[in-house]
Amino acid sequence: MQRIALLTSGGDAPGMNAAVRAVVRRALAAGCQPIGVQEGYAGLIEGRMEELDHRAVGDIIHRGGTILRTARSEAFRTSEGQQRALEQLRRHGIEGLVAIGGDGTLRGALALHRQGFPVVGVPATIDNDLAGTDVTIGFDTAVNTVLEAINRVRDTATAHGRTFVIEVMGRHSGQIALMAGLAGGAESILVPEVPYDLDDVCARLLRGRQRGKRHSIIVVAEGAARGFEVAQAIEARTGLETRVTVLGHIQRGGTPSGRDRMVASILGAAAVEALLAGQSGVMVGVRGDGWMATPIEEVLASPRPLPAGWMELAEILAR
Amino acid sequence: MQRIALLTSGGDAPGMNAAVRAVVRRALAAGCQPIGVQEGYAGLIEGRMEELDHRAVGDIIHRGGTILRTARSEAFRTSEGQQRALEQLRRHGIEGLVAIGGDGTLRGALALHRQGFPVVGVPATIDNDLAGTDVTIGFDTAVNTVLEAINRVRDTATAHGRTFVIEVMGRHSGQIALMAGLAGGAESILVPEVPYDLDDVCARLLRGRQRGKRHSIIVVAEGAARGFEVAQAIEARTGLETRVTVLGHIQRGGTPSGRDRMVASILGAAAVEALLAGQSGVMVGVRGDGWMATPIEEVLASPRPLPAGWMELAEILAR
Amino acid sequence: MQRIALLTSGGDAPGMNAAVRAVVRRALAAGCQPIGVQEGYAGLIEGRMEELDHRAVGDIIHRGGTILRTARSEAFRTSEGQQRALEQLRRHGIEGLVAIGGDGTLRGALALHRQGFPVVGVPATIDNDLAGTDVTIGFDTAVNTVLEAINRVRDTATAHGRTFVIEVMGRHSGQIALMAGLAGGAESILVPEVPYDLDDVCARLLRGRQRGKRHSIIVVAEGAARGFEVAQAIEARTGLETRVTVLGHIQRGGTPSGRDRMVASILGAAAVEALLAGQSGVMVGVRGDGWMATPIEEVLASPRPLPAGWMELAEILAR
Amino acid sequence: MQRIALLTSGGDAPGMNAAVRAVVRRALAAGCQPIGVQEGYAGLIEGRMEELDHRAVGDIIHRGGTILRTARSEAFRTSEGQQRALEQLRRHGIEGLVAIGGDGTLRGALALHRQGFPVVGVPATIDNDLAGTDVTIGFDTAVNTVLEAINRVRDTATAHGRTFVIEVMGRHSGQIALMAGLAGGAESILVPEVPYDLDDVCARLLRGRQRGKRHSIIVVAEGAARGFEVAQAIEARTGLETRVTVLGHIQRGGTPSGRDRMVASILGAAAVEALLAGQSGVMVGVRGDGWMATPIEEVLASPRPLPAGWMELAEILAR
Repeated sequence: MQRIALLTSGGDAPGMNAAVRAVVRRALAAGCQPIGVQEGYAGLIEGRMEELDHRAVGDIIHRGGTILRTARSEAFRTSEGQQRALEQLRRHGIEGLVAIGGDGTLRGALALHRQGFPVVGVPATIDNDLAGTDVTIGFDTAVNTVLEAINRVRDTATAHGRTFVIEVMGRHSGQIALMAGLAGGAESILVPEVPYDLDDVCARLLRGRQRGKRHSIIVVAEGAARGFEVAQAIEARTGLETRVTVLGHIQRGGTPSGRDRMVASILGAAAVEALLAGQSGVMVGVRGDGWMATPIEEVLASPRPLPAGWMELAEILAR
Repeated sequence: MQRIALLTSGGDAPGMNAAVRAVVRRALAAGCQPIGVQEGYAGLIEGRMEELDHRAVGDIIHRGGTILRTARSEAFRTSEGQQRALEQLRRHGIEGLVAIGGDGTLRGALALHRQGFPVVGVPATIDNDLAGTDVTIGFDTAVNTVLEAINRVRDTATAHGRTFVIEVMGRHSGQIALMAGLAGGAESILVPEVPYDLDDVCARLLRGRQRGKRHSIIVVAEGAARGFEVAQAIEARTGLETRVTVLGHIQRGGTPSGRDRMVASILGAAAVEALLAGQSGVMVGVRGDGWMATPIEEVLASPRPLPAGWMELAEILAR
Repeated sequence: MQRIALLTSGGDAPGMNAAVRAVVRRALAAGCQPIGVQEGYAGLIEGRMEELDHRAVGDIIHRGGTILRTARSEAFRTSEGQQRALEQLRRHGIEGLVAIGGDGTLRGALALHRQGFPVVGVPATIDNDLAGTDVTIGFDTAVNTVLEAINRVRDTATAHGRTFVIEVMGRHSGQIALMAGLAGGAESILVPEVPYDLDDVCARLLRGRQRGKRHSIIVVAEGAARGFEVAQAIEARTGLETRVTVLGHIQRGGTPSGRDRMVASILGAAAVEALLAGQSGVMVGVRGDGWMATPIEEVLASPRPLPAGWMELAEILAR
Repeated sequence: MQRIALLTSGGDAPGMNAAVRAVVRRALAAGCQPIGVQEGYAGLIEGRMEELDHRAVGDIIHRGGTILRTARSEAFRTSEGQQRALEQLRRHGIEGLVAIGGDGTLRGALALHRQGFPVVGVPATIDNDLAGTDVTIGFDTAVNTVLEAINRVRDTATAHGRTFVIEVMGRHSGQIALMAGLAGGAESILVPEVPYDLDDVCARLLRGRQRGKRHSIIVVAEGAARGFEVAQAIEARTGLETRVTVLGHIQRGGTPSGRDRMVASILGAAAVEALLAGQSGVMVGVRGDGWMATPIEEVLASPRPLPAGWMELAEILAR
């Protein structure tokens, strides 16, 4: 395999640049020429790609975002779009592709694999909603960003004796909400995977006040409820002054954490190694300090569950 | 003067604790007994106060919020409420009061002063909307918090080639928006003090794109417009994908910056010195490395203008 | 088991407070009374302990250090010291102990276990040098702190075209150096576990310069070499201007990261559950999203190796 | 004036890039061509310079270091070196120069001015040791970096009940030590400008312990004493376990604070305006929200004193 392309696709995640760097340098170390595709599958269809060398990925390991940029592509979902992508890959003499992103990215990778093109996926999404890996690239940084926000909000919550509802990302997955809520000492955590009862939330709030708590923080995944609706419901039922903060896109950016850079470095290199070893249609994932490969079909078939017992733990520790 | 009370009132601001610490320790150094009032004027009316010693303010200089807590008091706006406050002060043998907060706090202080009670104000509000001081306590930290958020958003804006509208605090004042926008390299800054034209904003955006800019950031003070309305207008007129982030209460919290702690330390001590020197009805403010006192009436009569020339500078530097 | 004691011992690590909180609240949820011992085994010998309730561990999950304080105890290494500790435990009606710390702490726990006292260890040390867990509490935060320092140094290294040697903690273990070096893009990483050759380090530096690199960063674990000696050797052999930064104790402090708080929460709760289930002489550790228990003897017998392949990966990625 | 050169020289400081950006864009707005000189006066002598456009300074306002790089030049101190620099300036058709840096940089600027070449200085040094400005570019960020380090050290100091000596930058100036010490709640602050007595330092430490203080932090400017000598002396006299942290070069780097970016933006633009207005041999400085120009001779003749009263304030507040 002489020429390996790489792209980042879907929502950006901190650590994508570290993964790009690892793919490029691991490929170069193996004697392959890495080729960077701009703006994901959209750029692939249009043939926007160029050869990358060592220096092209210098000084990026600590930067958020992705130097390859990213986009969502409607065209690539069609059979015609995929054919055009394959033509571009052939025209540029490319023999393998590393696709870095979330579930949509993996679906695209699977489509190419099914057409016979060698492709390996790297899980990068702040949502941490993919199986086949201990963690996805970007999740760790996103959780730390949410925790910083919770720290700030806690100051003002305590000063005013208020209740705060913090809405975090996660349309289908409560991973960020659960981990940030647990690590942030939130009183209640609402996630899409688990039914909740606002009466319970309110009862818990009132018990906390009776025990002398001066502030209360409730973390809500956007897929479970809208923050402001939860706040209105709480005010209506408890009379407690309640404010909302919707964290939004600040959760996607920022300097990646050590863990995200490490996971990205391991998986970027692993993706190249897997391709060179003849694997295709797999996603590489971390397991402990090493890595493993899982068929993408399997990854997509089984969404990552919330860690067993964490919701109960959160409930016990926030009492 | 043997007994000096202190309170924090209105919206909390990072550095309030450093000011509380300075008032307490400066008073003790002068042989006075400091008395902390809980929850601002509301607590004053209800007589919720206690003597503070050195240790009571240990290990707080770096914490956001305020250990005295804060509240807004409707009751204190009435003449009756003020009489009850004065009674409490007399009952506790208090001879002077330091009131830490924003314009509402100063209005309360002025009311007590007019009743003949010695009171000195300390400007603490993230809004930086008070004259008579180089800067208010909390503003520096709030701007740095907004800049961190802009940094994060910039990563994802660049990765996706998007326009972002960031709504910051400032109902009547564009100070945070202007400074954070200028220091954050925002393309446009909308503030309540200056009329704006969305056609200009859009034209500037499009010119930036033509010059090759991959992301654009627009900072909007909440008093100038709602972020989502600006975003909708931009999308409608330019067709550029535009997202909104409303920073909300994270702007109030966090570890205070060095400057906020320094200003708070100087002014907390200065307030005690001013009281002991027989001053009343004044607000202490920083000027360079020192401090000065200005009649509260004067402070309230002349809201702080936006710094001359900064809007033009922002426009030139963001081109 | 009605009364469970807990202590933190050895060097402090970020996340110890989160572990203390989890032990206390998990014990309370199980109907046990948690008893906090001050200053580790030293305080145990002297009987300095008190009952803790929910509020005693409120608002500490995000704080560095340990509210129970920590110390190293010579006395406890003697048989006599251990007998006195056991007497104190009996006198206070304590039936089980959770010991939070590093290898020295575990050795102390093992001694008590061998005397027949039920004890469970929780791995908390920034060194990450213990087997039986994916990671020790405090390591993740320490690595992020080192990376922040590397980021800062990188700015000035680039501005001046200098080489920097950064000495990090790790007397017997290169875990911090390896992970921070890899995630920080260091050109060379020196660790106690792997012999190194300064000629290689210098040759790599010079090759980097020839490729156009403007700065070089070398991370050195204190157990591998002293930073200033490495710097002197590099200057002598290459003529490149080289500076040293010894990070020192800033690596121990700071707000714990999300991961450290999470691991601490899981393991604090797990330690209580293990004790209640009748286990003793074990250390609880995280594995993926869950936990497991390993005999302390086994943990102490097999120091944690450097992750396989990471040194080579670091070398490839820094080229 | 059609062509204006700019350079950064001496030790780098956070905010230099923001100043470079402001000079370039302000010059372009005035119809001038800005020319960037590489590596300060050394690059000037060698004619290493190139024209800069808007995009050359895009996306740098938030980065530490300086894209123009910096160096110290022995050659430029000689009359011959200065002549060669003037020749280069003429050869490139340059009519004015903006020199960004500390006192050494200003001395160089003064030399060129005395030769009749128009030059304006911009104060950028973390040391804050220049008169003629409220603050120098870089100081605010450096203080915040030191405060972060103090926060971290405080955690471990409290956990172990230890005394910490923190050595900060400042060979001839105690500005960083004083402001960080005051804002960090240090028990004692040693600066080059004020004689100190270690017996006093120790007495204060012991008094603090008697009052129940669990940790003590002493901030030392490198120009006042070496940290480890202070620590040894304290241990010898008090018997208190004392540790040292030498912060070193991490104080120079990092994302510039809002204030540093703001001051840099104002002064970079002001330097261009001063040149265009026919001024030379002056340094521009901030005063409140505006700027002013001071003859460089005057600036160099009167080193900035420590702010009056701050040492006493620090002593009172740390009691």
